Amino acid sequence: MNRSPSAGLTVGVVGAAGHAGGELCRLLLGHPAVTEIVPVSRGGQCFARAHPNLLGSGLEFVRQERLAERAAELDAVFFCAPAGEAMRSARHYTDLGVPVIDLGADFRFADPAEYRRVYGEEHSDSKLLTEAVYGVTELNRDRLRHARLVANPGCYAITAILGLAPLLAGGHLAPDGLVSIHAVNGTTGAGSSPKQAVMHAEMTGSMLSYNLEGHRHGPELEAYFTALAGVPVPVDLNTAHGPFARGIHLQASLRLRGTWDRDELLRTYVAFYGAGHDKEPFVLVNDLPKQGARNDKDYDVYPAPGSVTGSNYCHIGLDHDADRSIAKVVAVTDNLVKGAAGSAIQNMNVMLGMEETWGLRHYAL
Amino acid sequence: MNRSPSAGLTVGVVGAAGHAGGELCRLLLGHPAVTEIVPVSRGGQCFARAHPNLLGSGLEFVRQERLAERAAELDAVFFCAPAGEAMRSARHYTDLGVPVIDLGADFRFADPAEYRRVYGEEHSDSKLLTEAVYGVTELNRDRLRHARLVANPGCYAITAILGLAPLLAGGHLAPDGLVSIHAVNGTTGAGSSPKQAVMHAEMTGSMLSYNLEGHRHGPELEAYFTALAGVPVPVDLNTAHGPFARGIHLQASLRLRGTWDRDELLRTYVAFYGAGHDKEPFVLVNDLPKQGARNDKDYDVYPAPGSVTGSNYCHIGLDHDADRSIAKVVAVTDNLVKGAAGSAIQNMNVMLGMEETWGLRHYAL
Amino acid sequence: MNRSPSAGLTVGVVGAAGHAGGELCRLLLGHPAVTEIVPVSRGGQCFARAHPNLLGSGLEFVRQERLAERAAELDAVFFCAPAGEAMRSARHYTDLGVPVIDLGADFRFADPAEYRRVYGEEHSDSKLLTEAVYGVTELNRDRLRHARLVANPGCYAITAILGLAPLLAGGHLAPDGLVSIHAVNGTTGAGSSPKQAVMHAEMTGSMLSYNLEGHRHGPELEAYFTALAGVPVPVDLNTAHGPFARGIHLQASLRLRGTWDRDELLRTYVAFYGAGHDKEPFVLVNDLPKQGARNDKDYDVYPAPGSVTGSNYCHIGLDHDADRSIAKVVAVTDNLVKGAAGSAIQNMNVMLGMEETWGLRHYAL
Amino acid sequence: MNRSPSAGLTVGVVGAAGHAGGELCRLLLGHPAVTEIVPVSRGGQCFARAHPNLLGSGLEFVRQERLAERAAELDAVFFCAPAGEAMRSARHYTDLGVPVIDLGADFRFADPAEYRRVYGEEHSDSKLLTEAVYGVTELNRDRLRHARLVANPGCYAITAILGLAPLLAGGHLAPDGLVSIHAVNGTTGAGSSPKQAVMHAEMTGSMLSYNLEGHRHGPELEAYFTALAGVPVPVDLNTAHGPFARGIHLQASLRLRGTWDRDELLRTYVAFYGAGHDKEPFVLVNDLPKQGARNDKDYDVYPAPGSVTGSNYCHIGLDHDADRSIAKVVAVTDNLVKGAAGSAIQNMNVMLGMEETWGLRHYAL
Repeated sequence: MNRSPSAGLTVGVVGAAGHAGGELCRLLLGHPAVTEIVPVSRGGQCFARAHPNLLGSGLEFVRQERLAERAAELDAVFFCAPAGEAMRSARHYTDLGVPVIDLGADFRFADPAEYRRVYGEEHSDSKLLTEAVYGVTELNRDRLRHARLVANPGCYAITAILGLAPLLAGGHLAPDGLVSIHAVNGTTGAGSSPKQAVMHAEMTGSMLSYNLEGHRHGPELEAYFTALAGVPVPVDLNTAHGPFARGIHLQASLRLRGTWDRDELLRTYVAFYGAGHDKEPFVLVNDLPKQGARNDKDYDVYPAPGSVTGSNYCHIGLDHDADRSIAKVVAVTDNLVKGAAGSAIQNMNVMLGMEETWGLRHYAL
Repeated sequence: MNRSPSAGLTVGVVGAAGHAGGELCRLLLGHPAVTEIVPVSRGGQCFARAHPNLLGSGLEFVRQERLAERAAELDAVFFCAPAGEAMRSARHYTDLGVPVIDLGADFRFADPAEYRRVYGEEHSDSKLLTEAVYGVTELNRDRLRHARLVANPGCYAITAILGLAPLLAGGHLAPDGLVSIHAVNGTTGAGSSPKQAVMHAEMTGSMLSYNLEGHRHGPELEAYFTALAGVPVPVDLNTAHGPFARGIHLQASLRLRGTWDRDELLRTYVAFYGAGHDKEPFVLVNDLPKQGARNDKDYDVYPAPGSVTGSNYCHIGLDHDADRSIAKVVAVTDNLVKGAAGSAIQNMNVMLGMEETWGLRHYAL
Repeated sequence: MNRSPSAGLTVGVVGAAGHAGGELCRLLLGHPAVTEIVPVSRGGQCFARAHPNLLGSGLEFVRQERLAERAAELDAVFFCAPAGEAMRSARHYTDLGVPVIDLGADFRFADPAEYRRVYGEEHSDSKLLTEAVYGVTELNRDRLRHARLVANPGCYAITAILGLAPLLAGGHLAPDGLVSIHAVNGTTGAGSSPKQAVMHAEMTGSMLSYNLEGHRHGPELEAYFTALAGVPVPVDLNTAHGPFARGIHLQASLRLRGTWDRDELLRTYVAFYGAGHDKEPFVLVNDLPKQGARNDKDYDVYPAPGSVTGSNYCHIGLDHDADRSIAKVVAVTDNLVKGAAGSAIQNMNVMLGMEETWGLRHYAL
Repeated sequence: MNRSPSAGLTVGVVGAAGHAGGELCRLLLGHPAVTEIVPVSRGGQCFARAHPNLLGSGLEFVRQERLAERAAELDAVFFCAPAGEAMRSARHYTDLGVPVIDLGADFRFADPAEYRRVYGEEHSDSKLLTEAVYGVTELNRDRLRHARLVANPGCYAITAILGLAPLLAGGHLAPDGLVSIHAVNGTTGAGSSPKQAVMHAEMTGSMLSYNLEGHRHGPELEAYFTALAGVPVPVDLNTAHGPFARGIHLQASLRLRGTWDRDELLRTYVAFYGAGHDKEPFVLVNDLPKQGARNDKDYDVYPAPGSVTGSNYCHIGLDHDADRSIAKVVAVTDNLVKGAAGSAIQNMNVMLGMEETWGLRHYAL
């Protein structure tokens, strides 16, 4: 590759009219090494109407053919497209040596049979699939450095994986334990095409469960959890939308081997992720001490999605139900940033050999 | 008792300045048999400032001594007071034959030792405690008819009990099964005194976990679940506030004996609660068929708290994760109505021999 | 008319799948004199999916032809239909003596030329138009008693008219005065068909101006204001959606003849509408005294839309900017109740000779 | 001054526990020239509890005395303190040549008598007051370059000034015209100390008027408007809180000399502020064409506060009510950024001779 990694980069964004695509554009506009963004949308609409927050950016949508023609000039391509599109188009770019980061599900399962089982469709490029690296940057840095195709994780998946990795990788999960996950996502997670159930008038002041028969991120999680833990890890994944635009609030309950309390959990997590930024730039363990007596509401020790809105951070809080011997994990992310566009850029930075935090250092509002 | 039950009733509301007390006043103002409401507040503030929605009602707060003096005239007294107050004051009314409904926790545990363990204080009237009937109207009607003291359930507790009773009472819970409950409550559930964590600017667009080490409604639930199931039922109760004022959105996961699917769950619930209003006036099973293929988001089959806001209804939806053999229950209530004031009035209606639905028939907004 | 007014009434609701139609069904289900509701929708969808809050009501949509066939059995028909539909269909019912209440704009302008100017379409039944009574119940009771066709006001219009009537009818408006109105409506005011701009993810945490070139309710207001004041009253009407589902928050500024202060404004309004419920059941003047010094935020003296949500009330608050001699009016309603379905039922009650408040007495949540 | 302006700067933030102070810290953490932030708070609380979004920043509050001792090392001091504090403490820093930016009202009125009239207190440093420069960067750049004390404008004031400057400075206001302003602010504008009226449970789904007798930003506005227009400009300022955390949505109506339409307004604004970023980095005119027929809701042409959340932008939209000859302006800002901390940093950048946009280039979420 004859590209100088930190010079003025040109990057393509396929599916730039949606929430994740708009977020990619927003973050790339602030990236110190990116000079040109090429946003692709089929709709032919006006960029400033699709993303009024980017008024003044000068960006305009182009058609996908135009991006394909310019492939040789590109330093990276992001796909935020409907299922199946990246599967069909990625090779055009990878064959020219252009790194591809797919924010969809097309390359998330190593096994094409599992893809077919979960997505109900045959995988059309199982050869390329063998090269895909699953993009949890914090856990896969070495492989990402040499990847030419990254499967960016689902927003629930990355939040759960970061939230539980210290316990799973440490071999602490009790045998035959079921990991129970309840995650609430903002309404940007429901996509950008208008639908009745997520109109403002319906959602405000309410919540909305969905896919309780088994969300597609469930098998994605289980596959990765099993890899981390070295044993099969069944996951009871429960999902809902909450009345906020962005953010995932994830609570997990699980039983562990041996005896634990909140302090021991905190020590385990700080050992894994470091304290503050000293080890991981974007994963922070909230280790504030509890101030009140038991059963006082000590809100500060649990992370809130509002504290990561707009940022690439994952905050993690911990607790322990001693009467029932259950470990509790709360992990929060912005579903459009750490759960999508932010992780994708973090992966691009690693793939291109740049500073991993470029374009992503902002704190949340 | 020389009171004619459906004549013009006079009722007292102790702790009427808070959310539950205001809601009692609102509902009692529309109750066809209630003529006079005596709202008690220590603060000495103005009723119309505390409850601007009741502007024009003509209600004014009185001091508790004034209510105590009028005890002999009262047909019922509600307590929405801080822990310990009902325990000390209820006897004054019950001794005069005035039915008492306590919306607090003072009379919820049959065993005073359990009260002490959970609330950290000695119970001061364990004699009266033996008479208290736990006020899940749908399950305790017969005992409520003869009660002179009712312990109204906690908002999480009643939502969980109604949501799981058909499975627990039917003996369907798998042996050694843990019932996993994740419930999100509106911010009225955090009380009415100003506190930083639930200011609008902090909560809007966010969520807030609390008491993950074990919420006080956990032992309340476990006690009742165990009574229903006939075997010990451990409950993993996880709680949070969501960015809405009212409403509980409760998801439960549990493993059952034998083989189930969504239809079988629906049949079990409809058999227990009836279809529509034919058996239970306020518990409705959402038995809409799924329209889409698996993994489509079929939002309509899950109840939303916005669909019960302001009403005394509990809506229940059901699903089944076949790959992991887990039954899913979604139950929603308005935490201030079915979770507090509405249930309390429903219980009063039963205690006084009136039509159970009086004052409570409104559909949600 | 051979109908006994307070017996079991049968009423039709055309356009029952939308927000106003659903609200009519909700309120009519609690109306003591209504026995049967016939909800009409063209879409053929499931009632319980369109209005999940009415789960258990047993209502099912019928086609409009079915309602038309049953016209002779009906006691009243409500139209919540797209512009033009009531104009074409109302006569079928009025010819049979069935009272019609139109919640749309078809019969709001006495002059068909004005209708054409504002709505860009010829009026198709200008004969029937001459009979229509404009349905601000509080100001038109006598004419409503004998009406067979009522034009229910727009939600902005009724809020502004109730908010300003005491000053306009009293002849207090300064000559050449412009009435400046800024009103914020909930997102139910944007209709129930899905559209991008009012998706939850777009609206939450934001606001949205619209129609600043002149909202269609402007001429409606001006016509009625002019009638009340006896002189032309130009209105600068500014509209926006706020991030709430229901409610209108309307602020008006105007200059008056002579010298005023807040107390004098309060006296004028209380003289017009009464204090509490003593004169008008649904219009309440908030006359709480200011507690703080000038420039303290005395929030309680201004009505909030949250205090009328779900109710048929209009709350009015008053203030006076002494430095600039400007009278300030704040009026709040629920756009779906007092602004639509509630007013419509209030009008039906008057037309049918029933108690005006039947089915509408609930206080707000 | 022996400071090198773009080297590693040390800045103090007095009043750093509140919303504006926290926002200053957030933005300064991303400022390329700032090395050390010294946040001052009297409360002695934990920084990470006050600003959970800044978890991991390593910042800790210090007492004001500590900052005062370090005055000679500082490159700038920001005051976000209660009224009166900056007035008393600023001189300590200015005497040492440390630039001071006051986000409060202490130095906003050139005339101490006006300060006394509006704030009810004698100004304690009228000498320093004569040096203060009013910090609307876009209109006062030259004076700011040489300022040692900047009075940062109120959030309503700066939004209104930026929104109306092209018309006022162009002499277009009609004689005797009253400028009517209705502005809705997020709840962060109500301060960070807990108060009943802005608890989440009270505000969500509602709105709250306040200070309709005349907000303190009114005289501030009038003074600046009069300076811009060269003639007295009375302002009818109406304020409210809306159910969102951040953002000002400001609508203004005014009558102009001569004949106007929307296009002419757009031309005037684009001439004043430039198109896109070509002239002003943070003021953007939304000049999208209307797509629909008149009376269609063409939402896109009006700016929404959600499109500037978290950013230093002011978006301006324009319209014209031809029937009543009224110009309409919609201006939106984030009250904590362009309305407070962002402007303050923009002013610091100008005062210290740095690139004006440093630390502020982010687009909104």
